[in-house]
Amino acid sequence: MHQFTATYTDLYQINMAQVYFQQGKHKHTAVFDYFFRKLPFEGGYAIFAGLETLLGILENFQFSDEDLGFLKDQGLDSEFLDYLKDFKFEGNLFSTKEGDIVFPTRPVLQVEANMVEAQLVETILLNLLNFQTLIATKASRIRKSAGKEMLIDFGMRRAQSSGAYHASRAAFIGGFEATSNVVAGKDFNIPISGTMAHSFVQSYDEELTAFRDFAESHPKNTILLIDTYDTLKSGLPNAITVGEEMKSRGEELKGVRLDSGDLSYLARKCRNALDEAGLQDVKIAASNQLDEYVIRSLKEQKGPIDVFGVGTNLVIGDPDAALDGVYKLAFANGKPRIKLSENLAKLTMPHKKQVYRIRNSKGELAGADAVTLRDETEVHRMNHPFEPSKTLSFTGCSAEPLLSSVMKNGKRTYPPKSLEDIKAFSRKRLSEFSEEFQRFENPHIYKIGISDQLLEEREKLRDHYKNKNS
Amino acid sequence: MHQFTATYTDLYQINMAQVYFQQGKHKHTAVFDYFFRKLPFEGGYAIFAGLETLLGILENFQFSDEDLGFLKDQGLDSEFLDYLKDFKFEGNLFSTKEGDIVFPTRPVLQVEANMVEAQLVETILLNLLNFQTLIATKASRIRKSAGKEMLIDFGMRRAQSSGAYHASRAAFIGGFEATSNVVAGKDFNIPISGTMAHSFVQSYDEELTAFRDFAESHPKNTILLIDTYDTLKSGLPNAITVGEEMKSRGEELKGVRLDSGDLSYLARKCRNALDEAGLQDVKIAASNQLDEYVIRSLKEQKGPIDVFGVGTNLVIGDPDAALDGVYKLAFANGKPRIKLSENLAKLTMPHKKQVYRIRNSKGELAGADAVTLRDETEVHRMNHPFEPSKTLSFTGCSAEPLLSSVMKNGKRTYPPKSLEDIKAFSRKRLSEFSEEFQRFENPHIYKIGISDQLLEEREKLRDHYKNKNS
Repeated sequence: MHQFTATYTDLYQINMAQVYFQQGKHKHTAVFDYFFRKLPFEGGYAIFAGLETLLGILENFQFSDEDLGFLKDQGLDSEFLDYLKDFKFEGNLFSTKEGDIVFPTRPVLQVEANMVEAQLVETILLNLLNFQTLIATKASRIRKSAGKEMLIDFGMRRAQSSGAYHASRAAFIGGFEATSNVVAGKDFNIPISGTMAHSFVQSYDEELTAFRDFAESHPKNTILLIDTYDTLKSGLPNAITVGEEMKSRGEELKGVRLDSGDLSYLARKCRNALDEAGLQDVKIAASNQLDEYVIRSLKEQKGPIDVFGVGTNLVIGDPDAALDGVYKLAFANGKPRIKLSENLAKLTMPHKKQVYRIRNSKGELAGADAVTLRDETEVHRMNHPFEPSKTLSFTGCSAEPLLSSVMKNGKRTYPPKSLEDIKAFSRKRLSEFSEEFQRFENPHIYKIGISDQLLEEREKLRDHYKNKNS
Repeated sequence: MHQFTATYTDLYQINMAQVYFQQGKHKHTAVFDYFFRKLPFEGGYAIFAGLETLLGILENFQFSDEDLGFLKDQGLDSEFLDYLKDFKFEGNLFSTKEGDIVFPTRPVLQVEANMVEAQLVETILLNLLNFQTLIATKASRIRKSAGKEMLIDFGMRRAQSSGAYHASRAAFIGGFEATSNVVAGKDFNIPISGTMAHSFVQSYDEELTAFRDFAESHPKNTILLIDTYDTLKSGLPNAITVGEEMKSRGEELKGVRLDSGDLSYLARKCRNALDEAGLQDVKIAASNQLDEYVIRSLKEQKGPIDVFGVGTNLVIGDPDAALDGVYKLAFANGKPRIKLSENLAKLTMPHKKQVYRIRNSKGELAGADAVTLRDETEVHRMNHPFEPSKTLSFTGCSAEPLLSSVMKNGKRTYPPKSLEDIKAFSRKRLSEFSEEFQRFENPHIYKIGISDQLLEEREKLRDHYKNKNS
């Protein structure tokens, strides 16, 4: 659906790139870390999403002639623009696997490229990964509440413009089964779902005729929306009539949908009436401002709802609506780099790095990821990243490396993964985390630490700049 | 940037359309209202945005061959798919002008088309108008706080994926002067702005060299980011050095930017030091989690900040992140239509309609918009839409019609408007509203009412369906 060219960026990336080019720095290698500082939704984890989207775009990230004409009009240097004519991203990416469980502070992905390339991809990388990670995480929370019931993404109309497209993709990774979003269904191979709106019923003089016409047109896929006039007095009896008629033709009414009122109460009434009419297989779908908390409540009340349609709160990632992911320089022109801050938590981590997930002797999670220099192959101890007096030792543990090469010289190192595979991987990885990390209220805090070597390197650099300015 | 085909929709639109087609209803005329129920941000008004985007897309809204192949695989009817091959939107749109001030309940736009057309454009219409209206409104509030200072949209990296594109457009309508978003700048003719990130400074061994190189490359457009290591001890003195060097070359340092710390305190320190160095014309720009409240506070403290860069909170429309706009059937197959609800505020308004803005004998706003049947040409009295005992009479007033034809038979009725014109119109319209409507805390409530005739028609229909179900 999208055509992303290299002007999908912030202007400062291009302005900085011009200086790098003029100073010959486009030949220097830079390493940037992508990470975030705060978990969304006051939750205990996040699900990394958007990687395949990013890789697909970076393989073809170029300036069009129109782009270059526009930049010329903006007064950019003509030699630099000549250079941009042939610009392609030819760098390397080391990344966490899409769908894996990720935590603040630790690099989720590292870009290693020349300064110009690394800078010009910053904005699109942040834009894609921040949003899809946010939505996959939200979807995963909703899945947690919904248990085994079916979840459908209904959010397109309230999404942030074409953010809808990637929202549907990320929702599937996080645990949704289907979407109403046709173009996302088509492009990402997500099952699509949808039946009728109130307007359909309103457009008829009689609700029953509306239901009958729909059932005739979609005998295998009829879910009747029953709250246009009166759920229990009109919608439900009419749905039962149509359900019986379909049954007598050897067809099956798939479901009824509730979109207003007390969903738990109405679902029970519907279930009883449908069962009495011999329509035990007709599902009950519910929608209307649902989120993980409302669904949890409906499940606690044992409202017999089989399908939840979730819209706005899913696709905008309510209430956070943004993940605070950043992209920070860690290495350039042969040297480690750092950004200082009065706020210690905003100090960045220098160097090329690796992240290890620590497991005990049985292979179970030990509750910690350790950030190390890239060439460290073992971790026996880690330090709190911002409170160096706190350390944690591991004995008899193994360390699973989380960053691996996903792009080399601008080319993917493996074929595209299906969304279904990413989702299955994500589900498997999340299942390793105990309930304490997954609960909504004050979840257990997963530990992130840094190795002795990385700590030493960071402190050395920090002292260097502090002494310089004192 | 985008390629929107007619699969940019919810599946149920297509499923309903198939039934309409099979029942010959694609020849019936339908009228749908677009309106919202709740003002965003607990504010007193909203700014309608997205219309030009919608018109441009609807003129070319068709199914591609790929779309039709996909729908065939989904099991849709082949005669219906043949019909969709030639599908084009050939309906009429009556709309509020883009940039005008709008309120809940009253139709912002009416679509009049055959049932299939009207249904198939619902999702994209809601998706585009809800989001841009949300962001233009947010931008307008930030403009209110910023007074005459410059506002730049920095939000792309935290936007909801390609929602960034329309966010930048809407932000400009609402009162921003520029954006960092290059592709939005190119496509919508918005001034673009941007200088350097922390990574630029970090990539050098010396901050001063970084500043010098940038100034040399961009002599007309240098704003130095001064908080990478230490704002007052390093960034500011280095910026002053470069500012003096530029001055001696007959050039001018445009500004310095603060992106952390106490912005008010630091801005004052910077202003004093710059002034003492004879750099009175160097502007001070500030960014870092700004919104209308933070900017109001900075202005109250008289922090000498000339330029505000606003990111996340602008482009996601924090904290609401969605406008609850809906699209409801008002008329179909020659008859007015209604949707009932247990919640009276969710009752819809039947019929083709007009909306009038009431003005007193001096032409000033009377604080009310009245919704009437489309052929009513005068309004002397209006009724509260949901509390019919409340009425308001107008004497000596004039009524300005707010809905006018913007598309006829699928073609725009006027040439595209520039974003600059839409913004100027919006500013003029907002200036008619007194401070009471614009304040952030408990703003004055603008009145929306319905005419006697519309009330009577609505009650008649309501009784009809109530009696049917009792």
